[in-house]
Amino acid sequence: MKIDDNINFNAFFYPKTIAMIGATPSPGKWGFIIMMNIIKGGYTGRLFPVNPGYREIFGLPCFPSVNNIEEEVDLAIIAVPAANMIPAIDDCIKKSISSAVVITSGFSETGAEGTMLEKEMVEKASRGGLRIIGPNTMGLFSAQVSLTALMPPVTPLKGKVSMISQSGNVGTQILGWGREMGVGFDKFVSSGNEGDIKCEDYLRYLGSDSQTEVIVLYLESLEEGKTFLDIARDIVKEKPIIVFKGGKTDSGMAAAASHTGAMAGSINIYQSAFRQTGLIEVSSTEEIIDTAGAFLSYPIPMGNRIGILTRGGGWGVITADACEASGLQVPKLPEEVIKKIDEILPQYWSRGNPVDMVAVITSEPYLKCLEILMSCDVIDGIISLGGALGESFGKSISDPNVLSIMGLSQEDVTRFRAELAAESSMINKTTKELMEKYKKPIVNVSIGGGKRTIEEHKFITYPTPERAVRVMKYLVEYGDYLRQRNLYEKRRFR
Amino acid sequence: MKIDDNINFNAFFYPKTIAMIGATPSPGKWGFIIMMNIIKGGYTGRLFPVNPGYREIFGLPCFPSVNNIEEEVDLAIIAVPAANMIPAIDDCIKKSISSAVVITSGFSETGAEGTMLEKEMVEKASRGGLRIIGPNTMGLFSAQVSLTALMPPVTPLKGKVSMISQSGNVGTQILGWGREMGVGFDKFVSSGNEGDIKCEDYLRYLGSDSQTEVIVLYLESLEEGKTFLDIARDIVKEKPIIVFKGGKTDSGMAAAASHTGAMAGSINIYQSAFRQTGLIEVSSTEEIIDTAGAFLSYPIPMGNRIGILTRGGGWGVITADACEASGLQVPKLPEEVIKKIDEILPQYWSRGNPVDMVAVITSEPYLKCLEILMSCDVIDGIISLGGALGESFGKSISDPNVLSIMGLSQEDVTRFRAELAAESSMINKTTKELMEKYKKPIVNVSIGGGKRTIEEHKFITYPTPERAVRVMKYLVEYGDYLRQRNLYEKRRFR
Repeated sequence: MKIDDNINFNAFFYPKTIAMIGATPSPGKWGFIIMMNIIKGGYTGRLFPVNPGYREIFGLPCFPSVNNIEEEVDLAIIAVPAANMIPAIDDCIKKSISSAVVITSGFSETGAEGTMLEKEMVEKASRGGLRIIGPNTMGLFSAQVSLTALMPPVTPLKGKVSMISQSGNVGTQILGWGREMGVGFDKFVSSGNEGDIKCEDYLRYLGSDSQTEVIVLYLESLEEGKTFLDIARDIVKEKPIIVFKGGKTDSGMAAAASHTGAMAGSINIYQSAFRQTGLIEVSSTEEIIDTAGAFLSYPIPMGNRIGILTRGGGWGVITADACEASGLQVPKLPEEVIKKIDEILPQYWSRGNPVDMVAVITSEPYLKCLEILMSCDVIDGIISLGGALGESFGKSISDPNVLSIMGLSQEDVTRFRAELAAESSMINKTTKELMEKYKKPIVNVSIGGGKRTIEEHKFITYPTPERAVRVMKYLVEYGDYLRQRNLYEKRRFR
Repeated sequence: MKIDDNINFNAFFYPKTIAMIGATPSPGKWGFIIMMNIIKGGYTGRLFPVNPGYREIFGLPCFPSVNNIEEEVDLAIIAVPAANMIPAIDDCIKKSISSAVVITSGFSETGAEGTMLEKEMVEKASRGGLRIIGPNTMGLFSAQVSLTALMPPVTPLKGKVSMISQSGNVGTQILGWGREMGVGFDKFVSSGNEGDIKCEDYLRYLGSDSQTEVIVLYLESLEEGKTFLDIARDIVKEKPIIVFKGGKTDSGMAAAASHTGAMAGSINIYQSAFRQTGLIEVSSTEEIIDTAGAFLSYPIPMGNRIGILTRGGGWGVITADACEASGLQVPKLPEEVIKKIDEILPQYWSRGNPVDMVAVITSEPYLKCLEILMSCDVIDGIISLGGALGESFGKSISDPNVLSIMGLSQEDVTRFRAELAAESSMINKTTKELMEKYKKPIVNVSIGGGKRTIEEHKFITYPTPERAVRVMKYLVEYGDYLRQRNLYEKRRFR
């Protein structure tokens, strides 16, 4: 894939030096908050505050202009008012800066006058060799240099997902949810008004970026739909692209038009184009992180036949319902599989799929059932409810009331919790090994279990079976797409 | 509503004395765990462990049989093995106990032999004047006497929701989710195999129970559908009934049959009967608590026309999409409303619905916009994203790194956080007052905001706009049903 050579993405995502134009020590201003977030994030390069009114900010020497900085400046982050933007751009050009993030709002999103100002700014910058993210952007994040140049006080977890967001509020919140679910990011950009660099440019870059394994898009509108789809089609051979589309209905499109100034196209056209191109279109904001985490965690299944393993009958019913409603099959188990499980579970077990472990709570039969299902020819993937049984019990038993009732010592509890943790860790390890051995996903649900991160457990775990079923559906859809294009074997065993 | 006089529900939910038959000091056994949960829950009555093998358990005197207890016993909780059940039942009858919770499994859910045993047990009990919850139940909870006779280590929050669950695993987990979302319970019963007392009996009781404002059901199958609907029809005039149906698909029904032994009926018949009867059927487990919390928090709207107030454009787009996709309207605002908001927001605000506050982050304009929308004739309810803006900033600013970067003292931060908390509390108070004044719901979304409970804030707050839209839809549907039956005015202004 050819990258637009005129955009120096390295300067945006791997800058060694940053000038923060409009830095200020006044709390509440963006020039304060962004600088605070950069410092707090532990940026590995050097940061130069620029503001003629100060000689020092947060203990760093402050420069009247970028042209007073002696070192080369890789990236300018600009947060001065819109009225002062043209001089700031002039300064950057004079300093031969290639790349600027324009945080400032008050451009095309505010009407005709702002549109003219944006055009003037971008044209001037282009002529001077300066490329712009924004304006009206909430900034960017890059894990490799610990750069958190963002407006909200979010510290993203580092990982293998990268995101382009046409809404700063939505995008930065997704970063926050990622942290909660243990899904980390490598690069993030709030694309703002896309006055210069467009969604398509970022997508092309992330497609070729070796740090990025999964791409996430919050999309409202596309200027060049065909270019976008051509780029996407190339990328999905190698990495999944997850899209959430804002502006699906008349009400949503009207809202989108008023907020970015761009017109969102008809959703039917978008949706069928997404599907044909192999993009994973998710239908709620919650699914964005759920699905990104699934693609980081699980092998792509060979088909839609799901085995369900549960420790509670009701949850098995709910999971089976959710599968069938989503177009996933819950196949009958072959007689020899039932016979094998007969040897493990009490004779009154469900003898069907879902496999209800009927209150058998130890690990060994659980793992045996898991492997029997994994090795079964009619099963393409498993949804497992119950791997993390001990966690809530372990938490409960540490309650001081419980300690005194049971007459347990703190030592007993510490030992007991350590045993539970070791067991949980062993289950996770075996689960991961089974997935590698059989190349099938075991999508995990931990109802009421503790929070579990991909770092600790090597795969994401969902709090409800419905959320697990939704991501399984997306994994299956991606597999279907790859198989239709004869790309499945290559992608799956990479 | 007439209650079956043969069931002493007071003995189940307000017992002064409980015999725990099968109590044991062996960790891991149900007779241990349930007793621990009762003690830990702070039960206000007296508890008598019964087990011939011990003289004392957890410091309480232990009795060889219930008949060795001198005091009257209101309730027996039985956790002995199925094989020892008949003698235990005989003992209870001899002691003239009216009410027993049979935790023990191994009855009709395991096949023909278990079904016979269950029948024998229930018939014997009935003849002896003993009524049974279960068998194969995970127990019950009653807030008024702090009785947590449950198998899992869950401590429900106390409140105004009561629940009947045909799955113990599902039901007790819902209690846990209620605690997380700040939705409290007054009564809960895991109905088990319903060998004696049926779902319909519990429903009739909760309908007449003055402590219960919202009823929640996890339902797999009904023995007497018509009776159930007749009872429900009467109740929904006064209080909403929220139903989640397990066994909606062939796969789910097959799973349900294997787990309770009962056959679930066709979902189409169920769903149209639910709708005609005014029950709120929710479609995912997450919605159970979301919806119960909504009915506790918000007035029932007069119609489906929704105003959206947001501090971030993208979230407004997503909310508008979700509304329209759910059949809620996002009406255009009348010219005079736009003029009023013109006086409050910067001139480039969205000038439409959603009302995008375009980065105005202070409370006063937010509350003014809220009241303008509330007083607007074309708006029946509001979804508000942004009431809790300061919370995550307040959390962030307490980060030790931030303190040192900003040169803030711990005192400064404490004062700042107190100011944010006071502002947040003022916003919540005003929100509540506006709902009372205009009798319209303001369903709150706090994206990334802190956890907020109904106790503290007097209303529930959702983490995503999609979840807020779903509950708004259910509020509207309940209002529609009440209006069709000419019950709306009465219910709404009670």
